[in-house]
Amino acid sequence: MAVYTQVSDDALADFLAGYDLGKAVSFKGIAEGVENSNYYLETTTGRYILTLFEKRMNAADLPYFIGLKQHLAAKGFPCPEPLAGKDGQTLRTLEGRPAVIISFLEGLSPKHPTPAQCRALGEGLAQMHISLIDFGMERANSLGPASWPRLWKGQASAADNLQPGLADLIEADLAEARPQNLTLPRGTIHADLFDDNAFFLGETLSGVIDFYFACTDALAYDLAICLNAWAFEDGAGNALEYNFSKGANLIAGYESVRPLEPAEREALPVLARGAALRFFLTRLIDWTSTPEGALVKPKNPLEYAARLAFHRKVKTAEGYGA
Amino acid sequence: MAVYTQVSDDALADFLAGYDLGKAVSFKGIAEGVENSNYYLETTTGRYILTLFEKRMNAADLPYFIGLKQHLAAKGFPCPEPLAGKDGQTLRTLEGRPAVIISFLEGLSPKHPTPAQCRALGEGLAQMHISLIDFGMERANSLGPASWPRLWKGQASAADNLQPGLADLIEADLAEARPQNLTLPRGTIHADLFDDNAFFLGETLSGVIDFYFACTDALAYDLAICLNAWAFEDGAGNALEYNFSKGANLIAGYESVRPLEPAEREALPVLARGAALRFFLTRLIDWTSTPEGALVKPKNPLEYAARLAFHRKVKTAEGYGA
Repeated sequence: MAVYTQVSDDALADFLAGYDLGKAVSFKGIAEGVENSNYYLETTTGRYILTLFEKRMNAADLPYFIGLKQHLAAKGFPCPEPLAGKDGQTLRTLEGRPAVIISFLEGLSPKHPTPAQCRALGEGLAQMHISLIDFGMERANSLGPASWPRLWKGQASAADNLQPGLADLIEADLAEARPQNLTLPRGTIHADLFDDNAFFLGETLSGVIDFYFACTDALAYDLAICLNAWAFEDGAGNALEYNFSKGANLIAGYESVRPLEPAEREALPVLARGAALRFFLTRLIDWTSTPEGALVKPKNPLEYAARLAFHRKVKTAEGYGA
Repeated sequence: MAVYTQVSDDALADFLAGYDLGKAVSFKGIAEGVENSNYYLETTTGRYILTLFEKRMNAADLPYFIGLKQHLAAKGFPCPEPLAGKDGQTLRTLEGRPAVIISFLEGLSPKHPTPAQCRALGEGLAQMHISLIDFGMERANSLGPASWPRLWKGQASAADNLQPGLADLIEADLAEARPQNLTLPRGTIHADLFDDNAFFLGETLSGVIDFYFACTDALAYDLAICLNAWAFEDGAGNALEYNFSKGANLIAGYESVRPLEPAEREALPVLARGAALRFFLTRLIDWTSTPEGALVKPKNPLEYAARLAFHRKVKTAEGYGA
């Protein structure tokens, strides 16, 4: 949940005067995204989302994120469209923060996605990749393999505290799951397409949001992130299990739009393991750095230790149902 | 901000099946209220708010709060209306919590209310009091004067840490600002009508929300709470000042609907001082009990120490602009 910057009614009225969107009739902070403040904004012309970019965002990245969404929206991909003010500018200032108004997307985030939703998600992911082929901007993946040793530094005892012996396993992952030498098709990836960043109406993908980890990287790595995010579920005794039906649907959906190249198929296990490692490492840092009693509880890193345990045993794309 | 209970899409669909409200097309946790989880819910039939009552709420109080809003809504007062399911029940269960769907109210909470908004708020408060004369339920004010010595116990050094000498002043307030011996007209009061619990469209009061401190108490005490909540503002050098124009408008608005009785006018200073003391004490407890680093920062109790300093000098209702 995220509402870090309060917006006064006067400031909102002044801000809206820069747009042709009418006057505000409702304005509520919403629990969406974790890096920024987001508001549900209803005006006399419709519903919107107002985002204020918080200090932890690098202001230099904002034109990339806005340009990316404009590019996708122009191609008809269901993502929030940054709306321009009367002066043609989308990136403006509100309460001293960079701010945008984006279009409102209908849909619900599935807490327990169905295999059909996984297929639609895979199709959407591939459509997004293809729509972005001619997107002209680039951004390095600041959480790519090169960053992992730095993220891991000093965390070994925290890992062993969570699960005895885990540190040694992570050391092995770091050595084996770093796909930096692979030559795979690259492009613009979402890099954080978890269930809370996708909206569905029934089994139709109606929206993809929160592009604030988007970057230029291997396209198949985005699919590997989605396998981690969408195809695992609590099984017997609450143990995390890979759901082959969901994973197979996700991959088949992706390939129905953009077939994987042989090198991408071959790399899928190392990419999936690397993706799980990346989320394990950032969750471990959040886990150890969040003060006790904080209202927003960090997510348990062990959910990704369990995924890593699965990925370590998979040697081929077929192991994911591909 | 408050989203304590997560709602899965399956659970939401099952829950909505108990209503004639159509299917969900959007569902977002919103930062409204502090005691419960609130969601913006949009369905194929319209916009609603879904509230889940959290553990800190006394379940035995829920029929009172729901009955109160039903009573007010039936009289045309702009408050959220609890909506009944197909079986006629308004209080239902979702994700193991008591839950209600209430009507959506348009409007914005004014961070810097204008004198005209203060007048409208006063009118609305009196209309609410009159609309509730024939409301049949009662609820004791658990934060009334009898509770203040208990709230204060053990907090003297915390008060002096905030402002040297404050503890002695609070001891005097406790002795002098306890209106327990007054015989004033009683009824159902909101008891927490701060600016974030009121919506305006322009200068028209379009909604009053968050009735979870409502109780049976002196009607003029509700007006005294509103004077504290609406008529103070940052003045020169950020020092809190009483805005006589706002206070006078608030009282005049109230009296245009329900004139104060002589005893109520006479009691206004002690009621205003008592109200400031009540919020000072609960803020002080929140301030000292919230762990450092928590994402939701407690409000500074000194804002109420400043109000108390003003109230100590006021001897008549005229001192508030009445």
